[in-house]
Amino acid sequence: MRRLAALALVPLIAAAEAPTPAKPQTPGEILAAAPQSDWRPIAADDLLVVEFKDGKKVVIQLAPEFAPVHVANIKALAKAGYWQGAALYRVHDNYVAQWGNNETEKPLPAGVVAQPPAEYFRALAGLDVTPLGSPDPYEPLVGYAAGWAVAVDTSDSTINLAHCYGSVGVGRNLSPDTGMGGELYAVIGQGPRALDRVIANVGRVVGGIENLSSLPRGTEALGFYKERSMDVPIASVRLASAMPEGERPKFEYLDEKSGSFAAWLKVKKNRRDDFYIHPAGGVDLCNATVPVRAAG
Amino acid sequence: MRRLAALALVPLIAAAEAPTPAKPQTPGEILAAAPQSDWRPIAADDLLVVEFKDGKKVVIQLAPEFAPVHVANIKALAKAGYWQGAALYRVHDNYVAQWGNNETEKPLPAGVVAQPPAEYFRALAGLDVTPLGSPDPYEPLVGYAAGWAVAVDTSDSTINLAHCYGSVGVGRNLSPDTGMGGELYAVIGQGPRALDRVIANVGRVVGGIENLSSLPRGTEALGFYKERSMDVPIASVRLASAMPEGERPKFEYLDEKSGSFAAWLKVKKNRRDDFYIHPAGGVDLCNATVPVRAAG
Repeated sequence: MRRLAALALVPLIAAAEAPTPAKPQTPGEILAAAPQSDWRPIAADDLLVVEFKDGKKVVIQLAPEFAPVHVANIKALAKAGYWQGAALYRVHDNYVAQWGNNETEKPLPAGVVAQPPAEYFRALAGLDVTPLGSPDPYEPLVGYAAGWAVAVDTSDSTINLAHCYGSVGVGRNLSPDTGMGGELYAVIGQGPRALDRVIANVGRVVGGIENLSSLPRGTEALGFYKERSMDVPIASVRLASAMPEGERPKFEYLDEKSGSFAAWLKVKKNRRDDFYIHPAGGVDLCNATVPVRAAG
Repeated sequence: MRRLAALALVPLIAAAEAPTPAKPQTPGEILAAAPQSDWRPIAADDLLVVEFKDGKKVVIQLAPEFAPVHVANIKALAKAGYWQGAALYRVHDNYVAQWGNNETEKPLPAGVVAQPPAEYFRALAGLDVTPLGSPDPYEPLVGYAAGWAVAVDTSDSTINLAHCYGSVGVGRNLSPDTGMGGELYAVIGQGPRALDRVIANVGRVVGGIENLSSLPRGTEALGFYKERSMDVPIASVRLASAMPEGERPKFEYLDEKSGSFAAWLKVKKNRRDDFYIHPAGGVDLCNATVPVRAAG
């Protein structure tokens, strides 16, 4: 929001004149200072690497803890080369980018469950939720569990992954179809939380989201591309674990139980660094999703 | 989120067999059925038309009720041709696209206030707020006033425009500078509500947001383009009122006091149409901004 790129040169004259109080940190500064021990590696078997024919890549972290059958399907589809010849064919502004074998009925590889259960939420039991600590329009409790931004329905002790920017879900037809995982979308706009218990949310983009969000928008209803020539062809979809060690992307996320995470969340709610005048006093879950970074 | 584009062909066989209960409406169906008398025209003098040299356009509705000095500045800048030679030079993924005369100090046209007051919020008095009716992470009350999505600090009876997808704000340096209006940004991601009382929010994109959101992301810090050759040159910035009548874009918004708006908001909170299984029971303000459409 800087008016001039030269902003960084604004001198902090006061610093030379008196002992200064601790300068308020930015969220980015807290992450940069977080000890390596606060970061958790993401398993190579949970990273799905989508490479388009133009060489651009998108890396997705899958969430087997939340949608085990759908995630197992996606892994089996990747291993079987199901997305050979597939393409991205839908970009709906402020909503989703979607890819797969649209309008092509391909036989399902062995081991793929054709009609998975509705893994739109799961039992809370076994998960330890760190509360966000700000009100949420959708559920009585939101926060973090197992490295993910989550929403909890406290009335029946169920929990779901929250649909935020970068979330990856499974396209489907009308209920009771849940989609088998062959058509996937990523959120490229305001978190569409109304989808939270409506669709299987199976993960999040951890690298290359800009290769989806900057694509031309489709002009047909729901953002479908009008002409097949607009589709973005996919070269390969692989698990990182199936790639040669030297080519694997590596990512890590900040442990929500760490002190760094708590400090980061506090500052996300109340920015006091130079640019900010009015500390907000709260934050939306989708403005404070779990920090993820390239590792190594 | 449909798996196949052929979904619209799913037959509604039951309709022929028995009297059906009223089919739950979608938000779009409610808007399509809203009587013309529920829509309010947007004044041509409040529409700012940004045309890029490639012919793509973005139309912005200005909000003089909320940031009168900044908006008067922007109108004066447009009339004086201040943005001749300007360009879009920053696209920060999931945040903002920004344009102006970056790194060029131009003399201010007559009538432009060089240092406007901090119009980050205003007195609530004179505005009638229709509550959203869902909790908000940032303020005790959010809703709609004068055709805008707003947040209210009930402790001091002040109100501000909410930073949502499409919001347009004024770039600035560090406080107390508030920006004079020459550098503008539009939100192209999750509503950055932490900016609500930090920056002058002066309006919203009502047409052509996809011409901003689909631009390549900048690779420098904060999303600035690395090379000037990446900048998107601006051909003109005009008020619609300064354009020939036949060329003026026309837009209208749904009156938040209308029955159509109430019905639309109710359904936004509780979608029960075919695709939706779990009515959310609430909605985020930035997922339910005021409906705007091209008129005539």
